[in-house]
Amino acid sequence: MSDGIQRQYASRIEGMTSFKVVDFLEAAVKMEAQGRDIVRMEAGEPAFPTAPAIIEAASAALRDEKTFYTPSFGIIELREAIAGFYQTRYGLNIPAERVVVTTGSSAALGLICDLIINPGDGLQLTDPGYPCNANFVRRAGGEPQLIPVDADNAYQLTPEAVAAYWQDNTVGVLVASPSNPTGEMLSRDNQRGINDVVASHNGVLIMDELYHGLVYDQQESSILEINNDAMVINSFSKYFGMTGWRLGWMVVPEDALEPINIMAQNFYISPPSIAQYAALGAFEPATIEIMEARRAEFRQRRDYLVPALRELGFSIPNMPAGAFYIYAGIEKLAADSEAFCWDMLERAEVAFTPGTDFGEHLARQHVRFSYTQPMDRLELAVERLSKALAS
Amino acid sequence: MSDGIQRQYASRIEGMTSFKVVDFLEAAVKMEAQGRDIVRMEAGEPAFPTAPAIIEAASAALRDEKTFYTPSFGIIELREAIAGFYQTRYGLNIPAERVVVTTGSSAALGLICDLIINPGDGLQLTDPGYPCNANFVRRAGGEPQLIPVDADNAYQLTPEAVAAYWQDNTVGVLVASPSNPTGEMLSRDNQRGINDVVASHNGVLIMDELYHGLVYDQQESSILEINNDAMVINSFSKYFGMTGWRLGWMVVPEDALEPINIMAQNFYISPPSIAQYAALGAFEPATIEIMEARRAEFRQRRDYLVPALRELGFSIPNMPAGAFYIYAGIEKLAADSEAFCWDMLERAEVAFTPGTDFGEHLARQHVRFSYTQPMDRLELAVERLSKALAS
Repeated sequence: MSDGIQRQYASRIEGMTSFKVVDFLEAAVKMEAQGRDIVRMEAGEPAFPTAPAIIEAASAALRDEKTFYTPSFGIIELREAIAGFYQTRYGLNIPAERVVVTTGSSAALGLICDLIINPGDGLQLTDPGYPCNANFVRRAGGEPQLIPVDADNAYQLTPEAVAAYWQDNTVGVLVASPSNPTGEMLSRDNQRGINDVVASHNGVLIMDELYHGLVYDQQESSILEINNDAMVINSFSKYFGMTGWRLGWMVVPEDALEPINIMAQNFYISPPSIAQYAALGAFEPATIEIMEARRAEFRQRRDYLVPALRELGFSIPNMPAGAFYIYAGIEKLAADSEAFCWDMLERAEVAFTPGTDFGEHLARQHVRFSYTQPMDRLELAVERLSKALAS
Repeated sequence: MSDGIQRQYASRIEGMTSFKVVDFLEAAVKMEAQGRDIVRMEAGEPAFPTAPAIIEAASAALRDEKTFYTPSFGIIELREAIAGFYQTRYGLNIPAERVVVTTGSSAALGLICDLIINPGDGLQLTDPGYPCNANFVRRAGGEPQLIPVDADNAYQLTPEAVAAYWQDNTVGVLVASPSNPTGEMLSRDNQRGINDVVASHNGVLIMDELYHGLVYDQQESSILEINNDAMVINSFSKYFGMTGWRLGWMVVPEDALEPINIMAQNFYISPPSIAQYAALGAFEPATIEIMEARRAEFRQRRDYLVPALRELGFSIPNMPAGAFYIYAGIEKLAADSEAFCWDMLERAEVAFTPGTDFGEHLARQHVRFSYTQPMDRLELAVERLSKALAS
């Protein structure tokens, strides 16, 4: 500080981790600014433009001055539209009252962690997993209880693992299916088994269903089909491609509505209004048609990329079921994922993310590829990686 | 819960308070739906539409597909524009690097509380004050240390009060000037005096400057003119009238940037993109001209309403300096502010907020009026209150 005083900031910061992906993203941007062409496979953001019906709904909201605070749980039309989506997609009858619109799924994660975690409580998470999860637990004063997961179990928890790792201070488990960074899913049997273990401890089951809709060989099922009282987190960012709008939602049990409402009022006031009105365009048939075409394109990319990467020496034991990620072992190629990612960025001009962004378990032996870029760019990436790995 | 299990939620919820204003707002909306005409003076949201240059900037952002994640601290153009605003308004040279764009001032408050408060730490706040402040402190595991303030000191803290109430666990003080709910300001001398007391304890001074620009008889000064390392919170919601967009900012000392960045990445990813591009339109001369005309209109409303309410028996010792609030004593009119507000909503069809929304100190003896409605509505409110109070 300019006055020479050194402040101590709160200790919760010390345990928190920044995104390594940002380092690679910034390096890639800098290289592009220098005139170099980089294939960008590091970030979890599809390159597709927002669907026309969503843009039109946003434009109408601007014209109609829908620019004021909304109820903290979101506009009722959107909550009803989301409830309707559960009917259409899963055949589930979810009352709109239990649908809470949030400022991105980030807000949903924060509100749920603040709701269920007392200081000292533990929440089970997968390692590897979405890196923010552990930091939301830390913000609430809780202990992230990381459970290593491997390709043997599709990088997912099993009922046995949840039971074995359950501790006296554990209050619940957060599972993502499909998962970031692996794209792998929890089988319906294991959903049921984990739900039983959690229920036997009177714990809370939180399901991150953010990548629902981006599943390629099967019909995904919501945990709500098994447990009506599970807490479900979802988002307009991934399937609907609305990242920068910052809009997500959650479905919560009735007894959670009042405490969540108090916190949502205080900590967010309301989700962004224009984004909410825009999102009404997400459920129009024309939008769903576009999203389904994108789903098919993502599938095509995955089906190209997985064998091509295997050919280059990456180990990908299972075909990832969904999302737009491939979590690949580099044990035949390099000793350390961070050094490898920097090396490939410099020599192959392909940006992707070291496993260390997602946890500690075998993180130096894995990298994550995002297939958010078009096919020709992915082909170029494979070509460049092939050359760089041969030299 | 439907399976009969009763969950215990985290104890942080128990200390948290919901907004009483929402009860009045919802009751007013319900009465309007029944065909009754209610003068709405309960909420802190100006009824003005968004300025055309802001809407145009938002429309251009939609056209140009500015719908992706941005850096977690916001787009650099906006950070530079805000830094430029400090130059224009205050003659202050603030580097854009120290300007952090946030998802509303709510996010700024949350990030600062999470940054400086360890569990058990205390933060000094005024009573009355913005109700969310104490809840952000509670979320961080801290203790809101409420200091009663009175009309004698313009409902603001004094250096003496800050010194007298400072405890072993106190880490800082949060002051709002102009304040919600009182519209009153901290004098420059008291800014300096409080800054000295806080510095002598090596504490953190947080200034809420949300209502800057809405000051009617003086030129407001930023705490940054006195202490370059104070933490300043501001918003596009009030002066710029961009409530539903959910966009704010803070200016923080350099050594706070890295820990705040880690938390902002994890907890928000980025502020809403469209709102950020829209806000670039806020600094255009045409917008400033509109906002200055609104400032004049707010002043006119205040100058009408304060004497008119005094005439009706409300006690308003000082002319409020800014914001769009009047904090009025009801000791000559009723014994309990909540009962009084419900009675006036029903009998006078005027909605306003009981002091109990803003703290405990003399809260039953005060109410808050918002003058966010046009003059003719305020005149109608006075006429209706006059009749109701006479009967």
